[in-house]
Amino acid sequence: MPPHATSFPSLGPAKLSIKTKQHCLNVKQLMGQETGIIYLRGALNILRDDTDVEIKFRQESNFFYLTGVNEPDFQFVFDFASHVSYLIAPYIPEAERMWKGEPDTVEEMLQKYNVDQIVYEDDLARLIEAINPSSVFVLDTTDTTPISKVVPMDKIDICMLKPAMYESRLLKFPWEIQLIRKVTHLSSHAHITLMREVQFGKNESELQALFEWECARNGANYQSYLPIVASGKHAATLHYTHNNKWLNRKDNPDMLLLVDAGGEKNCYGTDITRTYPVSGKFSAEAKTIYNIVLKMQQVCEASKAVLDRLRPGTMWTEMQNLVIRVLCQELIRIGILVGDQEEILKLGLTRAFYFHGLGHSVGLDVHDVGGSVVPHLCYVNDLDRLIYVTSLYYSRKAGVFNCLGDEEDNVARSHFLLDRPLEANMIITVEPGLYFNDVSLKAWTGFPELQKYFNLELLQKYRKVGGVRIEDTVLITENGYENLTIAPKTVDDIEALMAATHPRN
Amino acid sequence: MPPHATSFPSLGPAKLSIKTKQHCLNVKQLMGQETGIIYLRGALNILRDDTDVEIKFRQESNFFYLTGVNEPDFQFVFDFASHVSYLIAPYIPEAERMWKGEPDTVEEMLQKYNVDQIVYEDDLARLIEAINPSSVFVLDTTDTTPISKVVPMDKIDICMLKPAMYESRLLKFPWEIQLIRKVTHLSSHAHITLMREVQFGKNESELQALFEWECARNGANYQSYLPIVASGKHAATLHYTHNNKWLNRKDNPDMLLLVDAGGEKNCYGTDITRTYPVSGKFSAEAKTIYNIVLKMQQVCEASKAVLDRLRPGTMWTEMQNLVIRVLCQELIRIGILVGDQEEILKLGLTRAFYFHGLGHSVGLDVHDVGGSVVPHLCYVNDLDRLIYVTSLYYSRKAGVFNCLGDEEDNVARSHFLLDRPLEANMIITVEPGLYFNDVSLKAWTGFPELQKYFNLELLQKYRKVGGVRIEDTVLITENGYENLTIAPKTVDDIEALMAATHPRN
Repeated sequence: MPPHATSFPSLGPAKLSIKTKQHCLNVKQLMGQETGIIYLRGALNILRDDTDVEIKFRQESNFFYLTGVNEPDFQFVFDFASHVSYLIAPYIPEAERMWKGEPDTVEEMLQKYNVDQIVYEDDLARLIEAINPSSVFVLDTTDTTPISKVVPMDKIDICMLKPAMYESRLLKFPWEIQLIRKVTHLSSHAHITLMREVQFGKNESELQALFEWECARNGANYQSYLPIVASGKHAATLHYTHNNKWLNRKDNPDMLLLVDAGGEKNCYGTDITRTYPVSGKFSAEAKTIYNIVLKMQQVCEASKAVLDRLRPGTMWTEMQNLVIRVLCQELIRIGILVGDQEEILKLGLTRAFYFHGLGHSVGLDVHDVGGSVVPHLCYVNDLDRLIYVTSLYYSRKAGVFNCLGDEEDNVARSHFLLDRPLEANMIITVEPGLYFNDVSLKAWTGFPELQKYFNLELLQKYRKVGGVRIEDTVLITENGYENLTIAPKTVDDIEALMAATHPRN
Repeated sequence: MPPHATSFPSLGPAKLSIKTKQHCLNVKQLMGQETGIIYLRGALNILRDDTDVEIKFRQESNFFYLTGVNEPDFQFVFDFASHVSYLIAPYIPEAERMWKGEPDTVEEMLQKYNVDQIVYEDDLARLIEAINPSSVFVLDTTDTTPISKVVPMDKIDICMLKPAMYESRLLKFPWEIQLIRKVTHLSSHAHITLMREVQFGKNESELQALFEWECARNGANYQSYLPIVASGKHAATLHYTHNNKWLNRKDNPDMLLLVDAGGEKNCYGTDITRTYPVSGKFSAEAKTIYNIVLKMQQVCEASKAVLDRLRPGTMWTEMQNLVIRVLCQELIRIGILVGDQEEILKLGLTRAFYFHGLGHSVGLDVHDVGGSVVPHLCYVNDLDRLIYVTSLYYSRKAGVFNCLGDEEDNVARSHFLLDRPLEANMIITVEPGLYFNDVSLKAWTGFPELQKYFNLELLQKYRKVGGVRIEDTVLITENGYENLTIAPKTVDDIEALMAATHPRN
């Protein structure tokens, strides 16, 4: 069956209708400043190493947020006093136009972007002199080379802009919601296509390529992050991106495939994970584990679903604790964990199987402002430390600690979904998981004092399930939530969908 | 008709069988040094801007050439005296293994790569101390931070390695030829798929996505360069990579589509261009222009085809001059250029329509060592200067002038295909073109003294053809050449191929 037989209506590149001026005004208001300017420099074209091969261009997210410009070499100024936004365009020499084409004219740029004035780069100095700003607010990562030639360094503030920018980006405007809804729908469709097309004998890389093609032909030419297409035990490796294994029936006829992937369109992305059997039919063990994860997402104690509790005011930490409690109950119920529930919870033994956060904000970046990693903050042993350091490692790579001082202290501060209630117009993931990760299990079951809590024989039986994650991208609304993800996720729905292309022997 | 109905046999990721040790020995021989070591640092994982989004990893080409390693954070040492090659592997902490998976063991690396010893990064200093090299040869672009901690700076030579490396990379080994042949075949297949699938109403971006999918599902998960999918007049923009226009029949029912794209597999790429009518049928004007370009490639004066003259010993400059002569004859024949052929050639007026080189080397980089740009080296007027500067601009971006001194002098030196004969085992492109580029034509026809040579009315008639380029990647053999490109390119063959999916009204 051809991958595009179940075609999603072709969208093509959408016309931008992002009111970036509104973003500027919002940031200004959050900063509480009446004068000064924002200055940002957009991403440049990058060549690979010592070659002339261009890297596919992707605008820096904050620059896109304020300008909507997805072309290289632009700069931007927003004047707080006059509310005038200036897009500073690069000058493209004649010789380059022969090779790269005519750039947009001033009129075309004014029509295309939600800015007030176009200025060419040679006039940046004159513009800044004319405005004569009291302060220049930049991000701590902004290249200030051009602006620092015109403005004394003591006028440049690298601290105030970022928190306001992040706060603004956390609560989405209607046009942002519409973009993310669209890209989540088309990415859901790509997940459905993979469910139909997966077969033993294929390679993970081909499925990744199919996912990207399904997104691209529906208008999402970028991926929000490197896709994870992980079969069998690789599903337990959280950031597995090798995607190069063959799906071999002989290795494991009950093999699960975990696909964590989302398209990106106009710089706005999504984040979705589905896990399903390559054969089209869950084994008994796989179904047990899968339904635990589904329960973690859907049906919690006292019939209170996590998803049903998503609404403004809900504390995310509460949700995380709830999910861990469900996981604990279920692992005791099926016998992998043995002992008193409260004792096991206190020891944090569930973290042998589930060692990441319940979710994060999604937007211009997949781990959007508001929390790229949600670490568990209490430590009882070495593995906690190990998990903590892991989180920290990734957070540091993400640069979230810049100019904030002590790192330990900032893990919490940088992931404030932990200490503030949900609000309408947040877009977040809900992504419980359960993994049989070799490194983690070896560490946990290696502590002699903890071994009595694990049924090692039963653990061995479930180990071949590999790992399960179910991840939806959802919008918090005034009265609850809208699940933007429309790919099936119950065992029955998945098996029904796969039945047509996976006849039972 | 589904894009993959004409399926190419699925290849999947190939096992590496690149004898990189041979590459090291060859580089050593070309350097003529008996002692010292080569030190290279491979590419690192890169995160996008101030986020934790990983950029798709691509090894630095020279590092891949000597090691075959396509993973981040490796280093490499080759000892000239003992001929022992050392792969320096990164140490992956336990915490990271939970997230990224277990790295290869020493045994696995020794099996996977053609190296003699594996050393972990902490042992680099001890290794270098043990070897105690007289010189450390690095590329001028190598990050020497790790090695310079162990070796005094005056032992580090940044000049000798590069020329030898480039010379070695220019003449391909059998396993390299096999990789490029394979990727050229599967990319040719992807071009054929696009010919079948192109239709009015589609967007250039969808066709790009289809090309990438066709490559990826046949095992080439990378593109050798950003694809150019250029409809109508955009075909005249040489490095058009926006690829976002709709193919609108109302704009131009005779619209041509130029697709310049090639897959990449195991870091080896290819470079192919095909140009064809969206409708499936060439208009009279399009056919005229197309056949001129085909003649430039195939059937030159006195029945001497360029392709037929490709063999060891042939001077590339001779080929370029031949092609320009054919172009001149043909443009006079159809009446766009008016006047005496020798006079027109002397004035270089063909460059109004054809302003790039006839070809370049292909390998680990698409514009491989041996010439990324082949500029015309004689200047008669401002536009020559403009073209020259353009070439220079792109060359400079490619970094080919590093530590070589005067730029003007080096345009020729850096593109030595111009001053040396072809040799067996070179892989090069042959890519004549003919373009109606607004910037170029405006410049050329703007010189009052040149206007008499142009039939402006006729020029107007042909202008809507946009541009045509036909580009094959070919291997120079002992006795001639092998065209690795297998996509059709005559008008008849293209129309026959497209007929099934483009019925005539």
